[in-house]
Amino acid sequence: AEETPKFGLIGQMLAKPGKRDELIGYLKEATGAMPGCLSYVVALDTANADAIWITEVWDSRESHAASLKLPAVRAAIEKARPIIAGFPQHFETVPVAGI
Amino acid sequence: AEETPKFGLIGQMLAKPGKRDELIGYLKEATGAMPGCLSYVVALDTANADAIWITEVWDSRESHAASLKLPAVRAAIEKARPIIAGFPQHFETVPVAGI
Repeated sequence: AEETPKFGLIGQMLAKPGKRDELIGYLKEATGAMPGCLSYVVALDTANADAIWITEVWDSRESHAASLKLPAVRAAIEKARPIIAGFPQHFETVPVAGI
Repeated sequence: AEETPKFGLIGQMLAKPGKRDELIGYLKEATGAMPGCLSYVVALDTANADAIWITEVWDSRESHAASLKLPAVRAAIEKARPIIAGFPQHFETVPVAGI
């Protein structure tokens, strides 16, 4: 049968000034064990001290959608919301190699 | 001692029309076993049929630089060069979680 296409996200997130580390902390807390998540990398932007990059690979779009209902993820989103200043870049992909 | 910061790259690569699969093939060939490479994901862009996204994590900037001298990588770059139409997006990062 046709293999389910993987689901990938690449996004740049902007923290409010001085809040990047705090934001990374919330992301780390929530994203440890999410069913279907094959990769969830959080990285510092090297050009903007308030920005981070998140690159995700999921075994399906559905797994990603389900993760947004996980208590740990919901809690992290609530804590992070006040210190997020925006999502300047957001790309959806279909990972085909390397994962 | 201070741990060596990891090195990350996020890039969008444009293939010449109809050449995306061929380009992915060359990338797959070359990037299987590169010392210090912690992650090398190739993904289809969902908005542009000629574009791919490459997200890389290396244990150091030096490991990435050294990979460009590997025979397999050099060979792939030579084969890919004629069918690459550009690099519209290119971001350098410091991965701090998830890898």
